[in-house]
Amino acid sequence: MTKTASAPGSTGDPLPSWNEGPAKAAILRFVKLATDEESPEVVPPAERVAVFDNDGTLWPENPAPFQFAFIVDELRRHLADEPRLAQDPMVQAALAGDLGTLMAGDRHDGLMRVAALTHAGMTTDTFRTSVEAWLATARHTRYGKPYDQLTYQPMQELLRYLTCSGFKNFIVSGGGADFMRIWVERVYGIPPERVVGSTARTTFELRADGPVLVKTLDHVFVNDNDGKPVGIHQFIGSRPIACFGNSDGDQAMLRYATINNPRPSFGLIVHHTDAEREYAYDAKPLSTGLLVDALAEAAERGWTVVSMKDDWKTIFPLAPK
Amino acid sequence: MTKTASAPGSTGDPLPSWNEGPAKAAILRFVKLATDEESPEVVPPAERVAVFDNDGTLWPENPAPFQFAFIVDELRRHLADEPRLAQDPMVQAALAGDLGTLMAGDRHDGLMRVAALTHAGMTTDTFRTSVEAWLATARHTRYGKPYDQLTYQPMQELLRYLTCSGFKNFIVSGGGADFMRIWVERVYGIPPERVVGSTARTTFELRADGPVLVKTLDHVFVNDNDGKPVGIHQFIGSRPIACFGNSDGDQAMLRYATINNPRPSFGLIVHHTDAEREYAYDAKPLSTGLLVDALAEAAERGWTVVSMKDDWKTIFPLAPK
Repeated sequence: MTKTASAPGSTGDPLPSWNEGPAKAAILRFVKLATDEESPEVVPPAERVAVFDNDGTLWPENPAPFQFAFIVDELRRHLADEPRLAQDPMVQAALAGDLGTLMAGDRHDGLMRVAALTHAGMTTDTFRTSVEAWLATARHTRYGKPYDQLTYQPMQELLRYLTCSGFKNFIVSGGGADFMRIWVERVYGIPPERVVGSTARTTFELRADGPVLVKTLDHVFVNDNDGKPVGIHQFIGSRPIACFGNSDGDQAMLRYATINNPRPSFGLIVHHTDAEREYAYDAKPLSTGLLVDALAEAAERGWTVVSMKDDWKTIFPLAPK
Repeated sequence: MTKTASAPGSTGDPLPSWNEGPAKAAILRFVKLATDEESPEVVPPAERVAVFDNDGTLWPENPAPFQFAFIVDELRRHLADEPRLAQDPMVQAALAGDLGTLMAGDRHDGLMRVAALTHAGMTTDTFRTSVEAWLATARHTRYGKPYDQLTYQPMQELLRYLTCSGFKNFIVSGGGADFMRIWVERVYGIPPERVVGSTARTTFELRADGPVLVKTLDHVFVNDNDGKPVGIHQFIGSRPIACFGNSDGDQAMLRYATINNPRPSFGLIVHHTDAEREYAYDAKPLSTGLLVDALAEAAERGWTVVSMKDDWKTIFPLAPK
């Protein structure tokens, strides 16, 4: 839990940063239904599994996903030692912020190339050190703050409300599991083993100074779109009853959680409608975050659509004192 | 937690089924070191990760791993509908209990063949139903009891003792994650998301009656030997400080947990020395469970070796009333 997340008391409003309205009411109604011992539909705590997308749902994904900002900063750092890297067209695309070129093709060869330079060939300990150093020094271009201070305050309250209501919260994100697990417990109160993300296989080596795991890009698993329910089954092994996302990449897991679920279930889409305080996009995102099909399906499925502009009193937590 | 596991009180003996001796003393000493707030080496609860092999460590793997007994029983069931299966040489090997033929070759083609017949091509819900039906009806050939009543009582006490001491227990087994997750919470008090096992990728389908995940044998990950530390990193994301195994297949994760770990760490090997009450083997197991290299390394690494005959007062829990 961040130090700035307000702790909802059992008698007070658990969601103080949410305006009164249909979205907040739907959340409160679902949690009561699933947890009220008097409710005929009460869900046993072991089955209270809630899954949260990360980029665009718990923190921004503009002007680019934060992990992409990490990649770019890491490439700059490597360039100081290996200036020849500047000749690599995919490094050039990354430095230019040209996600389109990197994501081209079914296998996203460009993104894999820059991921290989920044996410493979080192031990997991070395990778951890580089992520921690980056988080401590990097600042978001628009907000000028460390990236991990830019989580959405209303979603922090929701995470805490669900935890206090006996839910187990999981991150289910297209981002790298190794990247997220380093800071999720500190930032969201979610332990590293409750992170489902994109992964590749490490290799185990017993070196003179001890055992290490070396990161590779072998057996890449992309935890997005249909990969999300697949990842949920592979890593969690239970069907969620609550699912929170913001883009078409979350549509499959929203369906998995909510369609014909024998338990009460809940789907929610964070709609980026606030250009003033954050960003406004759906069909035409600046980077990732396309939201068209899932938004069209929301009414039919009964998914709650949150308007950041209308439903959220504040977007970000207050800076730590 | 099984109903039969005795609950250790905070003042009583947490390991009543363990004889007094070096193994029990080593466990108690380690837990005190890692959890005593006055200890300079106290480990924060978030890092108290304990990993347990399953077959041969928490329950027997003789005369064959229990999941193999499930495969054989499932093949028999399928034969009633598809008698032509009896012509398949690998089905014949399985029905004859010939694990050697099934495990031959680097890729264990025989085992993959019978796994495909019993673990793939159906939805995860159908698979769950078949495992639950099998557990309810199948009986161990020697003990005549349901397989899930054959867990080791001393290890049940150890699981509970670690949980009460703020540890997070995980299963890290070569068995199938889907197979284990169905019963681990009921049998060991370990929730399904804390199971690291062998996996394959499912495919997601939205059918007329709702979303399903179909089991395949694509992208098989075998969680054994060096695969165990790899699986621990991929699924848990933290380095364990305590590791419990019984065979050379656990050697890599014992090394990962204990060699040059900056935290206090603990490794333990269950040595099957009790032919009368259970089985006696190491270099010549009846099926799986070869224990030679890890046993030879135990003294050098300070791993505790448990003699089931000498260290355990009882092997199995009392039958439920």
